[in-house]
Amino acid sequence: MEDTVRVAAEELKGYIERIEKLEQEKKDVQDHIRDVYAKAADEGWDTKVMKQVIRLRKMDDDDREEQEILLDTYKRALGMSCESE
Amino acid sequence: MEDTVRVAAEELKGYIERIEKLEQEKKDVQDHIRDVYAKAADEGWDTKVMKQVIRLRKMDDDDREEQEILLDTYKRALGMSCESE
Repeated sequence: MEDTVRVAAEELKGYIERIEKLEQEKKDVQDHIRDVYAKAADEGWDTKVMKQVIRLRKMDDDDREEQEILLDTYKRALGMSCESE
Repeated sequence: MEDTVRVAAEELKGYIERIEKLEQEKKDVQDHIRDVYAKAADEGWDTKVMKQVIRLRKMDDDDREEQEILLDTYKRALGMSCESE
């Protein structure tokens, strides 16, 4: 019985340590991403617009076009578009 | 002038592509974490409790003890503790 508990505890510890290692890797990558944005900002690039570009590049052409048309429609509806004036 | 624009565009592209590569790495690590939790769940471990354990292991002993005392106090205050009855 004690052996079973010990084996189970070791199994659990194995999972926990694997996850902790992966969480650390994730944190390292996140830090790295932040560094790249910081460097780009130093060079004068607007990081908010960069994030928008990255989001748009993830979408396929049809989705992107559809979203741009909708955004334009909503902007007109709210009088936010130059063309609406 | 055109050369300057081209150089700037290439610099921007470099930043964007580095971030996209890192975002992909982050996604891979996240998928890996999910797989480990799924495997642990298959073996009968409760993943919510595992997440609590991981959170507790991140804290130092004093912080953990303080939080446990506070949690116990709050539970008593709300009649959620066996000892309060």
